[in-house]
Amino acid sequence: MALLGYGTVGSAVDRLLQENAEDIERTTGHRLRVVRALVRDPEKEREHRGAPGVLTSDISSIVHDPEIVLVAEVMGGVEPTGGYVLELLRAGKPVVTANKQLLARRSAELFAAAAAAGVQLRFEASVCAAIPVIKALRESLVVTNVHRVLGIVNGTTNFMLGRMEGGAAYDEALADAQRLGYAEADPTDDVSGADAAAKMAILASVAFGSRVALEDVACEGIEHVRPEHVAAARALDAVVRLVGSATLVDGAVDVRVGPALVDRHHPLAAVEGPFNAVMLQGDAIREITLEGPGAGGLETASAVVADMVSILGTTGTGFLQGDPCWRELPLLPPGDLPAPYYVRIAVQDRPGVLARVAERFAEHRVSIARLGQQLTDGSATLDVVTHTAPSGRLWGALAAIEALAEVQAPPTALRVVSERGV
Amino acid sequence: MALLGYGTVGSAVDRLLQENAEDIERTTGHRLRVVRALVRDPEKEREHRGAPGVLTSDISSIVHDPEIVLVAEVMGGVEPTGGYVLELLRAGKPVVTANKQLLARRSAELFAAAAAAGVQLRFEASVCAAIPVIKALRESLVVTNVHRVLGIVNGTTNFMLGRMEGGAAYDEALADAQRLGYAEADPTDDVSGADAAAKMAILASVAFGSRVALEDVACEGIEHVRPEHVAAARALDAVVRLVGSATLVDGAVDVRVGPALVDRHHPLAAVEGPFNAVMLQGDAIREITLEGPGAGGLETASAVVADMVSILGTTGTGFLQGDPCWRELPLLPPGDLPAPYYVRIAVQDRPGVLARVAERFAEHRVSIARLGQQLTDGSATLDVVTHTAPSGRLWGALAAIEALAEVQAPPTALRVVSERGV
Repeated sequence: MALLGYGTVGSAVDRLLQENAEDIERTTGHRLRVVRALVRDPEKEREHRGAPGVLTSDISSIVHDPEIVLVAEVMGGVEPTGGYVLELLRAGKPVVTANKQLLARRSAELFAAAAAAGVQLRFEASVCAAIPVIKALRESLVVTNVHRVLGIVNGTTNFMLGRMEGGAAYDEALADAQRLGYAEADPTDDVSGADAAAKMAILASVAFGSRVALEDVACEGIEHVRPEHVAAARALDAVVRLVGSATLVDGAVDVRVGPALVDRHHPLAAVEGPFNAVMLQGDAIREITLEGPGAGGLETASAVVADMVSILGTTGTGFLQGDPCWRELPLLPPGDLPAPYYVRIAVQDRPGVLARVAERFAEHRVSIARLGQQLTDGSATLDVVTHTAPSGRLWGALAAIEALAEVQAPPTALRVVSERGV
Repeated sequence: MALLGYGTVGSAVDRLLQENAEDIERTTGHRLRVVRALVRDPEKEREHRGAPGVLTSDISSIVHDPEIVLVAEVMGGVEPTGGYVLELLRAGKPVVTANKQLLARRSAELFAAAAAAGVQLRFEASVCAAIPVIKALRESLVVTNVHRVLGIVNGTTNFMLGRMEGGAAYDEALADAQRLGYAEADPTDDVSGADAAAKMAILASVAFGSRVALEDVACEGIEHVRPEHVAAARALDAVVRLVGSATLVDGAVDVRVGPALVDRHHPLAAVEGPFNAVMLQGDAIREITLEGPGAGGLETASAVVADMVSILGTTGTGFLQGDPCWRELPLLPPGDLPAPYYVRIAVQDRPGVLARVAERFAEHRVSIARLGQQLTDGSATLDVVTHTAPSGRLWGALAAIEALAEVQAPPTALRVVSERGV
């Protein structure tokens, strides 16, 4: 086999293959050996070098070597990576990739090439590292009509929200995450929800068989989560988490990422620190939750090897050779997704304000499940939990509430997650 | 394909195959149809009858039909089931089974027959229904050297312990479980831990590649769990759960089932009601936890169909065709497993009793992490949490403590589970 890339993940794949050659042979009947690894500069000083002669800068030495029956792409990036993968698939070589950006941008083209050549393109490591969620969706839950995927798919923000639960302010939580290596120097991709959105796009595409692009995901980050929200969550026996959801509603798809209040008894509430978890809800299974570390070089390498093992085990059978997206479902208009919400409203403490706020909710047909009021000289905070209503109605109510003279700042709304599989 | 048995699970398999024929064809390239189902009496009145002519009482009409390429055994029992499965494997037909008793008793023989005929014997549904834990172990975690499996694998007892946490006494919790259909009229198999032990034997065998028999599992049920234990757990920020553990210690295997105090932040503590969860700890993955409903006709049928899909996807490749048990590891002497324990000791409130108890622990080289004392006129209860020590030393200390004049009843000890993957 060959690797594209020989950094942390690539060298770990090589090492796992060597150390576990017998386990792989016992499982598949084959021995796998890395015979070539594409790098930009084979002469460069590097921590891991592989066996002599393995490193190469020439992609054609991989594409045209008939002895190479399998390639793992662990170099990252969209270009030139995408072109290489396409060339390999067209040459009839199955490919395993850990690259969520590549999938988010070019998956239609890549899967079409794989199907045309009759080879597999597998991508377990692109979402939640070693947690076998893609395999569960594509192989174990074939007949269960998964209609909802709920996930905590970004470890950085989950760690930060945990710190805030412990009393830290947002900036402290971010500084902690950076110190421990969970967040980059520029944390935008994580805290904005963009990383989670890319993963939810892949999960939704696989779960529903219909391609969801990155720009189809409604995305909100955790930048506006304040200690007050965390405290309000606690008072409601919930925790604040960055939750991705993909939902099939009457044949239409809704995918969104945003901070949410998760009921303390919901399996996602128990996900702590930088861990990830994905809950799959379907007809025959009610719900299955998979949890584990969502990142890490060795964890990612483990998922890459698992995909390689699966390819060896299924080659020639026609299994999983089509595009996982086999239909085109419409997107649900964003305001149509029904959900309960928690709303926090800062108001002046004047007679009648509560009634006027309640009236706005009623006018937009959002019914209130719970209402609490906290007073601090002259001003008050209303904590409202709504019953399930289409999001659009809630947004209408919020706009009307913001326009009230007594309301001091735009209200904040967090989705409430308590739904379990039926 | 054919079914052995056409009860709740069998008829659900038939229905899932019909309703999802296109999904299966898209995934595997094949259409699956139930052409024969073995039942004792085809003429008997029954809720589901299948297509006309499908029901038969003649096993040879399945064994000798060359059109039948796959058989699912969902009739249960050890005999005549075992003989049928053996005959089918020898005739070259791959078999899927949901039967943990059969596997616990005859797996060596069955896997040998499968390997000799070059066909697969799959058994996902035998453990935790639709939770894909066997698939994860055998296909996703091939190179991760799983060294510990921790599981809540019995829903009945988990539900009961949850009720006790909510204030119910043991008998009330059991009555509730029976009323809701989670427990049988004779609940012995569940509350004694025997059901969990059979599942842990299968999980340990697959995880470590070495056969663990039912009688190799040290098993304790929940019959002796009292509200006091549940309250003591709460005071220690833990919950009482029936935990199965399979551990590889220096090349030896330890498998046990028993009530344990699970730290509130451990993923297994979040498993509520009749749900199951299995945590897999390994080198490359740290830990992965899979959670979901551990029983149910439709859930079991879903796992059976998933195995059938996997067989279609791997036939002819040599994948997973050997016995999952490929080596013979020794059993760890039961006293050698290192673990921390919670111990509850009822003593007379006399001067020096605490010192004498502490002395017994010290004599057996068990060090104490935490000690609390509760007084109620004239007698006292000691709550002790030990540091990790080989179980045998703890048992020695307990025997010595029981022999003290001031100790009023045999002390109770529950393992403490807080270990996470590294």
